[in-house]
Amino acid sequence: MTELRSYLGGDWRPGVGDEIALVNPSHAGRIGHVRRAQGLALAVAHARDTGGPALRALTFAQRGRLLERMAAVIHAERDALLDLAGRSGGNTRGDAKFDVDGATAVLSVYAELAKGLGDRSHLIEDDAQPLYHGSKLRAQHVRLPRHGVAVHINAFNFPAWGMIGKAAVALLAGMPVVSKPATSTSALAHRIAELVLADGMLPRGAFSLLMGPAGDLLDHLEPQDVVAFTGSADTGRLIRSHARVLATGARINVEADSLNAAIIGPDVARGTELFDALVRDCTVEMTQKAGQKCTATRRMLVPSALMDDLQEVLVERLDELAARVGDPADRDHRMGPLASAAQLRDVRAGIQRLCECATIVRGDPQRRSFGGEGTEAGFFIEPVLLATTPQVALDATAPVHRTEVFGPVATLLPYDGLAATAGRVVGAGEGSLVSTVYSDDRAFVREVLHQAGPHLGRLVVVQEKTARASLPPGGVFAVANHGGPGRAGGGEEMGGLHGLELYTQRLAVQTGASQLARLLASD
Amino acid sequence: MTELRSYLGGDWRPGVGDEIALVNPSHAGRIGHVRRAQGLALAVAHARDTGGPALRALTFAQRGRLLERMAAVIHAERDALLDLAGRSGGNTRGDAKFDVDGATAVLSVYAELAKGLGDRSHLIEDDAQPLYHGSKLRAQHVRLPRHGVAVHINAFNFPAWGMIGKAAVALLAGMPVVSKPATSTSALAHRIAELVLADGMLPRGAFSLLMGPAGDLLDHLEPQDVVAFTGSADTGRLIRSHARVLATGARINVEADSLNAAIIGPDVARGTELFDALVRDCTVEMTQKAGQKCTATRRMLVPSALMDDLQEVLVERLDELAARVGDPADRDHRMGPLASAAQLRDVRAGIQRLCECATIVRGDPQRRSFGGEGTEAGFFIEPVLLATTPQVALDATAPVHRTEVFGPVATLLPYDGLAATAGRVVGAGEGSLVSTVYSDDRAFVREVLHQAGPHLGRLVVVQEKTARASLPPGGVFAVANHGGPGRAGGGEEMGGLHGLELYTQRLAVQTGASQLARLLASD
Repeated sequence: MTELRSYLGGDWRPGVGDEIALVNPSHAGRIGHVRRAQGLALAVAHARDTGGPALRALTFAQRGRLLERMAAVIHAERDALLDLAGRSGGNTRGDAKFDVDGATAVLSVYAELAKGLGDRSHLIEDDAQPLYHGSKLRAQHVRLPRHGVAVHINAFNFPAWGMIGKAAVALLAGMPVVSKPATSTSALAHRIAELVLADGMLPRGAFSLLMGPAGDLLDHLEPQDVVAFTGSADTGRLIRSHARVLATGARINVEADSLNAAIIGPDVARGTELFDALVRDCTVEMTQKAGQKCTATRRMLVPSALMDDLQEVLVERLDELAARVGDPADRDHRMGPLASAAQLRDVRAGIQRLCECATIVRGDPQRRSFGGEGTEAGFFIEPVLLATTPQVALDATAPVHRTEVFGPVATLLPYDGLAATAGRVVGAGEGSLVSTVYSDDRAFVREVLHQAGPHLGRLVVVQEKTARASLPPGGVFAVANHGGPGRAGGGEEMGGLHGLELYTQRLAVQTGASQLARLLASD
Repeated sequence: MTELRSYLGGDWRPGVGDEIALVNPSHAGRIGHVRRAQGLALAVAHARDTGGPALRALTFAQRGRLLERMAAVIHAERDALLDLAGRSGGNTRGDAKFDVDGATAVLSVYAELAKGLGDRSHLIEDDAQPLYHGSKLRAQHVRLPRHGVAVHINAFNFPAWGMIGKAAVALLAGMPVVSKPATSTSALAHRIAELVLADGMLPRGAFSLLMGPAGDLLDHLEPQDVVAFTGSADTGRLIRSHARVLATGARINVEADSLNAAIIGPDVARGTELFDALVRDCTVEMTQKAGQKCTATRRMLVPSALMDDLQEVLVERLDELAARVGDPADRDHRMGPLASAAQLRDVRAGIQRLCECATIVRGDPQRRSFGGEGTEAGFFIEPVLLATTPQVALDATAPVHRTEVFGPVATLLPYDGLAATAGRVVGAGEGSLVSTVYSDDRAFVREVLHQAGPHLGRLVVVQEKTARASLPPGGVFAVANHGGPGRAGGGEEMGGLHGLELYTQRLAVQTGASQLARLLASD
């Protein structure tokens, strides 16, 4: 079997020690292996000292053209990549598109934004301001690329979009990247890295790939480095409190656990397009990627009067989907397996914790029979819907507000239909990436914005008039902020040009007005 | 002697346990005491649950009027406050103005900015963008006040500006404040808090004052809280790795150690106004506040050919000042004592560490005789100038790049006059708040911007033409970013409206174009 090697210090390098198997999660058949990489100190230094200056020597417009080229190279192999996403990650065709096309879309968006930034290598943040009332001295804020390396530690659920989305922003900002995919699904990330590196468009040292465990990667951080991590809140805390992180002050961005909510307004009724959009969104968010999305809806806040109607319709939809769970190699299957045996264990354990405060109203977490050859050895679970009480909905200590079950699992939470209550329930999650409000009641939506908004990184609003044209909230678009406070990690990624903030240093430049204009006019 | 009480939970409350004496640093005479506060859990909850909603119910314009009123109340007692700054902090009249007038200036700047934000309670960050090319759906970023408390832990050197500067921004953002001044100089912060609270302009719970030790303050943090800390890098690391901080994901801002540099261009020559400005700045930065400024210049990068000239002139100026160090109660004295016995010990120890890589060219760290009655018991030290070699200047492990000596102490570092070298030397400090470049060579200044800029939060540029009108770099104006990467803590404060970022949550609002416009149009 092939070893998927790391690309470090400008070369593809085999690892050492035991083989770590990569398997097809539909039947646990082996597709390759990785081994532990060596020489991370040198690899990080190579990126920082060779890739950094090379990228910083380019203008934004030039870096944007690199992204454009990356998008083209990836898109040219789209079909093969979609197949690989199915074999290595259990993705249905639709799931695979979500990941792979998402990656090329981020590259295209940032390539386009780069054109607007033009032929310079610093960002101008605002207009020059007098230092004090009447002063001829001015201060103006610019952003400059940090002189370090961007270490990207990605989650298993989006091997393409996760790696490329982070890399697009860092490279455009002018920082070299060392990317470490999550091992279980890393075959797709590896293949994309091969394509990009083989094309040779990137300057030497601009992109490195670390396969297998992170090892002592963080021990080599320097003060100008940036770590962007997506994964569990527990690992996020380990990174934040890592001795070298604390010693250097390297900048950290974390996207972690998130108990995203659907907030259903008191005015929503069965038979409307708003209700249909709600049902579509909740079904998609539960089952797309087998629910393995950090933005998937986990908590559905339902006005008590609507509980029976919504539960009935959702159960019906989920029953249909549950009948079509199986190996995505068969395109009739609408939902694939979880990514790994460990994920299946975690999801089953998580459902058990949810059952301390909620009841399963649909789905059998122990079901063993799914569509396709050999799937009894795969990591499948069918959609599981739970429901709880208004009392539990308001109990911030209940597992439904604490436990992110990273699979096709969500809970219905009845509430009184008041925006203040919705804000309280959303806030009980202690920080989430995204929530959605379904309502035509403007006062309700506005109140939700102010009460729930500070607990979120993104708020999607769906109304009757545009319900049909709306999109499920779990899709992350490069123009919108991706991140959330508290439990969600406190991070911020994407958001158009805001995404560059992570990789750049804000600098106030203070001098006379005309000197300032000349200094910042161009490079 | 009076106990300076805390204001917690809406009342002035005495502490418990042993008295912690506050003394006049010029002769160690006692001026009052503080004791350990109790009930911090309730105090923090009161701020969060009473002060938070009250502030959030106001618009920016209304909050701005609170700041305006605070400025007026403080300014009305200016003379008494300047006197108190002398008695309690060892400030000369000029030092005291820098602190007290700095506080009212920040309030005025943010009061003025508030007018531009008008009658709403959310900030709009950018224009709405199509979610993807051709989509009718839009995403737009707003910022909303976090639903927590802003915990401010301030340094001893600016009891007025530190407390009020942080409070102005948090209150304008809509967050209630719990402010903990550094104990040694807290008499001034206490008096200002008394004035503000007695006036009654602030909503109940909007401002609390914790005198004495922080105790278990951080154990009561919640995910929506913010901690803004100014002080040592060591304490900054303790806060960042505090169990409750990691568990909640409360947001942290740190301003810590900083080895600010003066970068003297190869074109600077004696006899020019640029040289005079340089000498003025270096002298002011060494001796203002007895060098106890986080923005004070610690490292002077001098082209080797200019070393003798600059050293000669600086020694001459510092000799003049050294003859006028004493109790600031006598206005003839131009420099006062350090703030405490502990600071004096630290500064002497720091000079010893610098002497491992540099030589004292002016000043006696052990001098005991200073102007004024009883000053032999005070915490005085005279200005100490050191010099080192070009080899040490480039050695990133040398103490001159590692040790912030928080007193009237700086080191001359000869270098080859190349911008790339200057960038390397500045970077050896691993992140600083501010540096200044003195040069008329545009290419040099531009290269310094790009090479040194990413290691800084602010860069001051001084040129011959405007040298006379320039200001010493240690002054922090509310319109310019205050903070720096790495060792300087990675924080960002002030910077005009950017300052509000710390206390607000960025939220992407995603919906149809017309809904978005209606939702965000006004409150």
